Amino acid sequence: MYFMKTFIELIWQPWKEVIEMVLDEKVAVQVDKLKKLTIERRRFLHAYPEPGWTEFHTAAFAAKILTNLGYAVSLGDAVLNPEKMMGVPEEAILKEAARQAIKNGAKAEFVDQMAGGKTGIMAVFKFALPGPVVALRFDMDSNDVCEAQTEDHRPYKCGFGSKKNGAMHACGHDGHTAVGLTVAQVLMSLKDELAGTIKLIFQPAEEGVRGARAMTASGIVDDVDYMLGAHFGFKMKHTGQVACDVTGFLATSKYDAEFIGIPAHAGAAPEAGRNALLAAACATLNLHAISRHSDGASRINVGSLVAGSGRNIIGDKAVLKLETRGATSKINQYMAGEALRIIKAAAAMYDVKLKIREVGSAAGGSNTPELSKKVQMVAERLAIFDDIVPTADFGASEDFSYYMERVQKKGGQAAYMMVGADLAAGHHDSYFDFDETALDYAAKLLSSVTAQLLTDKFIEKV
Amino acid sequence: MYFMKTFIELIWQPWKEVIEMVLDEKVAVQVDKLKKLTIERRRFLHAYPEPGWTEFHTAAFAAKILTNLGYAVSLGDAVLNPEKMMGVPEEAILKEAARQAIKNGAKAEFVDQMAGGKTGIMAVFKFALPGPVVALRFDMDSNDVCEAQTEDHRPYKCGFGSKKNGAMHACGHDGHTAVGLTVAQVLMSLKDELAGTIKLIFQPAEEGVRGARAMTASGIVDDVDYMLGAHFGFKMKHTGQVACDVTGFLATSKYDAEFIGIPAHAGAAPEAGRNALLAAACATLNLHAISRHSDGASRINVGSLVAGSGRNIIGDKAVLKLETRGATSKINQYMAGEALRIIKAAAAMYDVKLKIREVGSAAGGSNTPELSKKVQMVAERLAIFDDIVPTADFGASEDFSYYMERVQKKGGQAAYMMVGADLAAGHHDSYFDFDETALDYAAKLLSSVTAQLLTDKFIEKV
Amino acid sequence: MYFMKTFIELIWQPWKEVIEMVLDEKVAVQVDKLKKLTIERRRFLHAYPEPGWTEFHTAAFAAKILTNLGYAVSLGDAVLNPEKMMGVPEEAILKEAARQAIKNGAKAEFVDQMAGGKTGIMAVFKFALPGPVVALRFDMDSNDVCEAQTEDHRPYKCGFGSKKNGAMHACGHDGHTAVGLTVAQVLMSLKDELAGTIKLIFQPAEEGVRGARAMTASGIVDDVDYMLGAHFGFKMKHTGQVACDVTGFLATSKYDAEFIGIPAHAGAAPEAGRNALLAAACATLNLHAISRHSDGASRINVGSLVAGSGRNIIGDKAVLKLETRGATSKINQYMAGEALRIIKAAAAMYDVKLKIREVGSAAGGSNTPELSKKVQMVAERLAIFDDIVPTADFGASEDFSYYMERVQKKGGQAAYMMVGADLAAGHHDSYFDFDETALDYAAKLLSSVTAQLLTDKFIEKV
Amino acid sequence: MYFMKTFIELIWQPWKEVIEMVLDEKVAVQVDKLKKLTIERRRFLHAYPEPGWTEFHTAAFAAKILTNLGYAVSLGDAVLNPEKMMGVPEEAILKEAARQAIKNGAKAEFVDQMAGGKTGIMAVFKFALPGPVVALRFDMDSNDVCEAQTEDHRPYKCGFGSKKNGAMHACGHDGHTAVGLTVAQVLMSLKDELAGTIKLIFQPAEEGVRGARAMTASGIVDDVDYMLGAHFGFKMKHTGQVACDVTGFLATSKYDAEFIGIPAHAGAAPEAGRNALLAAACATLNLHAISRHSDGASRINVGSLVAGSGRNIIGDKAVLKLETRGATSKINQYMAGEALRIIKAAAAMYDVKLKIREVGSAAGGSNTPELSKKVQMVAERLAIFDDIVPTADFGASEDFSYYMERVQKKGGQAAYMMVGADLAAGHHDSYFDFDETALDYAAKLLSSVTAQLLTDKFIEKV
Repeated sequence: MYFMKTFIELIWQPWKEVIEMVLDEKVAVQVDKLKKLTIERRRFLHAYPEPGWTEFHTAAFAAKILTNLGYAVSLGDAVLNPEKMMGVPEEAILKEAARQAIKNGAKAEFVDQMAGGKTGIMAVFKFALPGPVVALRFDMDSNDVCEAQTEDHRPYKCGFGSKKNGAMHACGHDGHTAVGLTVAQVLMSLKDELAGTIKLIFQPAEEGVRGARAMTASGIVDDVDYMLGAHFGFKMKHTGQVACDVTGFLATSKYDAEFIGIPAHAGAAPEAGRNALLAAACATLNLHAISRHSDGASRINVGSLVAGSGRNIIGDKAVLKLETRGATSKINQYMAGEALRIIKAAAAMYDVKLKIREVGSAAGGSNTPELSKKVQMVAERLAIFDDIVPTADFGASEDFSYYMERVQKKGGQAAYMMVGADLAAGHHDSYFDFDETALDYAAKLLSSVTAQLLTDKFIEKV
Repeated sequence: MYFMKTFIELIWQPWKEVIEMVLDEKVAVQVDKLKKLTIERRRFLHAYPEPGWTEFHTAAFAAKILTNLGYAVSLGDAVLNPEKMMGVPEEAILKEAARQAIKNGAKAEFVDQMAGGKTGIMAVFKFALPGPVVALRFDMDSNDVCEAQTEDHRPYKCGFGSKKNGAMHACGHDGHTAVGLTVAQVLMSLKDELAGTIKLIFQPAEEGVRGARAMTASGIVDDVDYMLGAHFGFKMKHTGQVACDVTGFLATSKYDAEFIGIPAHAGAAPEAGRNALLAAACATLNLHAISRHSDGASRINVGSLVAGSGRNIIGDKAVLKLETRGATSKINQYMAGEALRIIKAAAAMYDVKLKIREVGSAAGGSNTPELSKKVQMVAERLAIFDDIVPTADFGASEDFSYYMERVQKKGGQAAYMMVGADLAAGHHDSYFDFDETALDYAAKLLSSVTAQLLTDKFIEKV
Repeated sequence: MYFMKTFIELIWQPWKEVIEMVLDEKVAVQVDKLKKLTIERRRFLHAYPEPGWTEFHTAAFAAKILTNLGYAVSLGDAVLNPEKMMGVPEEAILKEAARQAIKNGAKAEFVDQMAGGKTGIMAVFKFALPGPVVALRFDMDSNDVCEAQTEDHRPYKCGFGSKKNGAMHACGHDGHTAVGLTVAQVLMSLKDELAGTIKLIFQPAEEGVRGARAMTASGIVDDVDYMLGAHFGFKMKHTGQVACDVTGFLATSKYDAEFIGIPAHAGAAPEAGRNALLAAACATLNLHAISRHSDGASRINVGSLVAGSGRNIIGDKAVLKLETRGATSKINQYMAGEALRIIKAAAAMYDVKLKIREVGSAAGGSNTPELSKKVQMVAERLAIFDDIVPTADFGASEDFSYYMERVQKKGGQAAYMMVGADLAAGHHDSYFDFDETALDYAAKLLSSVTAQLLTDKFIEKV
Repeated sequence: MYFMKTFIELIWQPWKEVIEMVLDEKVAVQVDKLKKLTIERRRFLHAYPEPGWTEFHTAAFAAKILTNLGYAVSLGDAVLNPEKMMGVPEEAILKEAARQAIKNGAKAEFVDQMAGGKTGIMAVFKFALPGPVVALRFDMDSNDVCEAQTEDHRPYKCGFGSKKNGAMHACGHDGHTAVGLTVAQVLMSLKDELAGTIKLIFQPAEEGVRGARAMTASGIVDDVDYMLGAHFGFKMKHTGQVACDVTGFLATSKYDAEFIGIPAHAGAAPEAGRNALLAAACATLNLHAISRHSDGASRINVGSLVAGSGRNIIGDKAVLKLETRGATSKINQYMAGEALRIIKAAAAMYDVKLKIREVGSAAGGSNTPELSKKVQMVAERLAIFDDIVPTADFGASEDFSYYMERVQKKGGQAAYMMVGADLAAGHHDSYFDFDETALDYAAKLLSSVTAQLLTDKFIEKV
């Protein structure tokens, strides 16, 4: 043993580095070759934005490419537990989206499998040699934003602006999907040099943290050793910046609470009403007064309150949209538990009916430090990043945390990266756009890290 | 003196009654003759509903008829103080309404005089003999209701349903205006038998109690001795019922309060926001906690609360629609004063900006008892009503109270009547419709009361 | 019949008036004779104030005198339903008060019968001739006020100031009791001229409206035809003023609500606490926001809120003292129902325990108009009052309303009078004192009214 | 240079360690010799507890001993800026405490210098050789707790229980002061071997974090290089445990807010009142709703709310006792700023007057890591502790943070230690007592660390 250790340190280490650098080089060449295609795909997807659970066109587009590349592609029920889907639009909206997708060229066979909003897909490839399972997650959904239509907004000017009124890729998921397809092709090109299994997950409904719970609940990451994910921009401010160790994912729960009262004329018989508007106001104030938690950060926000039927009518209905967060899943559970009790009591206080729906949730968590270190090593080796941020506090919620939590609980490792990109405007802004050079940076980093992970043990076992 | 009194009681009284009965009879004949025309006009107006301050078509229609009847008609600035107009729609809406009115046949000359929403008119006729000034008020505006379009709704079935989406005469003001035009014609037909002056006021924007303040502020009722008004239905439940002594008009103030905060990400930097949503919830709760007043009834209602920009964003904006009421104008002033202070403090508490607009108001008050008695006497004499309710508590607000208050303060008398009508559905309901027989009942009562008032002194002076 | 009516009107009426005047005169002579004694008794009682349910000394004092006068006196369980007693002090306080009473001269036999705070007494006398049952109620309890001890306060200066620290007759009940004893003696002196039954009720715990419910619940007024009560001062501002028609007794309910939470260090583990202080604040705000009632006046007041254990401890306990009122018992029931639901929901909202106790209540109501008229007639006849106010709105609560409600429900009549007295300071003030001349005015009015009622039918039947 | 470094590492280091061990040994011998005296003094102080700003007896006791030991002792204005004193009791209480102190043996000369509650003292000794300035802080005040008087409470059983009703040393400051006097004597005994200056600070009013601000504001620690402080127990659970690196002092502000309204009868004229009780309830709810801060932990607590004058009176007065906290002084400033604005707006909302007083505050902060390491090294060397906890999160507030902040800002270092002690009951409990063995542990650690610091540079300069 001691000999082996010494041997590896002195002799094998440099040799291993050579192998890795050769793989990096091959990745880089491939990504550069696909550069134009990646951009084209991103722009094509940008023009057809699809909000959460309606990604029929996007998913079918990806499914077709991945199948052609040689991946085993699964859709719908196979990769997604429908019981755990949250915040699903009404049936009519789903049907119309499916119809539009087919009209815009989506393969009907794929669309049918995704009926009911089950728009998740997974592409799997098992290499000849045994090795770890590495999964990568890409999110596909767009935002409920009206895209700017002015000459100073590149997507509009260059003709790839949203073709769907009220929907826009304003968070870069078009880029994520395009990068996913490029990574798929690059890794396939290295298939003779890799050992283990790749799982490429294309997830719906990340916005509102609705999709990951259903996908992880299907068990698709239960055998995963390394889980990877990435996002453009966010806390990274320019192209060339990258964060490999992301911590502080806030666990979160999203609820819609509907109070149903009884209207009455506010002058003639106010006592005959049941005041849902007051119940909602009372709930709101007391929700924000939930006690801090001494174990770490917590959050509560009622972000929307719409109530009442008219100035002279006792407010007979009210809808709250709220969310809780916590530095850990446990803290968020405390917050969510308090919130639900308060809302119920407010309804009881004003003798109004109540409907509560959970419409989104994410776990808390942080990257596995060892994997973060590995990712950082690769990022340094690639020599394309000019600013490698050591540790970034996420301070918000991403349902990637569900994969992270599930994989880490079973002993695997997970890492999330933030890949910098010059932005035209902030996320969710109608002028959002990003420097497409960053597409390559992300594709290279994800491909190289995956290649490293799928050769690590292989090499060590030599 | 004593002799005179005895003479009047014993000799003159019966003779006076004969004169009055003859007048009543003439009124009845005229109204019956105009029956078909009254209904036609009501239906014509029903098809062209115009919400408050946009009654260009309605007012021009009335102005033309009144001019033709021989009345001196004034419009716009002449009858309405623009500074006291409340809850006026945006310029673009007014312009579009004016344009549509002209397109639908309104005389451009009239419409131009009413530019900016000054859609009030007054028709005056001075009889040859001197006598008191009697004013009658008719309101013209429609509601923001989508009219039912089913076969069981007569206006739809008979082809006079609303031609304007989102607007409907669901409170009977179409009938009020039609009755006003019939009364105008009837009184003109009696011109040789009456003494004094008639003022027929056609008022915009009664809904939301917005119009009367501006009309009374112009001074048009400052010389009025008797002020009359009427409403179909309300607390009268069937055709043939009538209330001649209406009390308990609640004084009221209507406000829109807009809180303007600063958005911030609810997870990443909640402290950076300025929470307008919480300010609004806090204001709402504390508004409803304004102390009761020991002098009489008071009311407060926040009837609408719309706040926030999204679940995960600190609520950066909020709009409250509220109203206060009081059994007297003084109690309402107390309520409104408290409300304004609370709203301002809530904005200060959450460090958000505030815009408050008064969008409606009415005074408190009750009929002048003597005039009510006279009206009831006439109602009994007419022998068309099967249920004459002695006193009815209004228990709500009507901006007729502004005329009432102004006339009573100057020593005049005022009376408001509720004229029963079988209703297809409640006021402001999309299926609202009323028994058109009631049009005649109202026209006869108002004409006869006016004729009585314009002969009373004349007769006494004989 | 017609003859009889005419006969009575023409012949009998004047004769009846003579009889009444003779009785009035006899009453006046008696009262004047007892003048000094009445004042002495009032001062004696003033020096031994006893708060609600501890009137052992006062009641025993009255019981002894009444027994000596020839009345049948009942105490304790015989006149008071213990299950309906509200706001009873702790056992130890009752025992100490009983002990003190005996020490100060109360007959132990009486005190024993009143054990547990059952300090109500009733003195009954049935006259030889049959006739109506007339009941008079006198309240005996003192206030929780520290009496002023300065030379400008007559009770102190004249040596009859309170001998008990923290207790004071600051609402004139000492005078009420003294008047009651004088009335007892006067009526007894007229026993040969009266027909029917007198019931003299000496009630404990009027302050906080706690005593009447238990006394009426025992059934003692169920056979009463005429129920009388009186209060010094209140809305009457000087000696010589009197109000015979009192209306607008507000029904009321008094509650103590105790929230029991769990303390926790506010810095180290705030989430471990259960915040009773916040529950109480939340309840308070929402209680005051209970909707007005369109049927008439309503009131809500949280008059005391004591909460928390220390600045840096999550508020683990809170006590609210509140009351609701209504123009009618029904409106008060609405208010109380809303209040209880809100308090329970506030406890549920903050997950704290709750104890609610009803500690007082009174019914709503007004004098029976016929009886008021009779009282006023007597008042006029006596010619001692210089200002007879026609109708006075009480606008507050008095548990005399329980007798009123019970008697009126069974077809009897009830009247409450306010007897003016020059006051040294307002009710419940530590400088409260009243002009003792008013004692005679009250004694004369009550005696004469009773005499009138106990001769009315008798006379008519002659 | 290189040579020197090598020399120190190889040759000098062991030698230095020998010197240090000799000093440790001398300290230990001294402390052991004083063991009985330390306990006696602690018990003596325990029997005469003095709450914040009334430590006349304690301070005079210490001043006398320190003067006798040869220290230059300063009191009152010399060591304490009176303008920065917070939460000072009323003049009468201070005077009575001073009187009692003299009666119990305090030197009048000292007591006079401390008039007005300026009960801080500082003892300074400058050694012959130049060197750093080391300050130690000991707090002297007792708690507002009634000490248990049962046989199972040692202070009572052994006759040193509190002689002052309502006051008790329930946080161990009696021990702190006794340790301070022992340390003073030990260090003086080493005067020929130390270089630099010692400042022994005996601080009043640590409870409620009131005293340190005034002492630091006088400038007494502005020249300090090393600042030391210690507390018994807290997060250390048994004798022998010690924490040398304490982090996470929460910055805090304490406020009393008094709302002054206008009373009114809740039934007869509620609108005439100005409701301070509701203002306080509203403030409380909204205070707890202050937004979390994304930079770190924050806290808000209204720990006491006392409001109202009686059930049937509009609540005319209210007092809130509250505190804010923050992981950093900046976060606490944010919390305090929000809190003050909310309280002011609540007063404005209810049109009531407001008085706010700041009654306590502490800065945020953590030990200087280098100094913590040095302390830990000493703790290990002493070999008396069986559990040396590496880092302890304080998670609460201690106004030692003011010394810490001031010294660290000027480039000095600060360290706070928690010295374990078996406790009879928790801090602030009426049964609080601690294992007196811990007195020696604390005295040895503080003396040895000070000795080390006062020889470090000296040795290095050899």
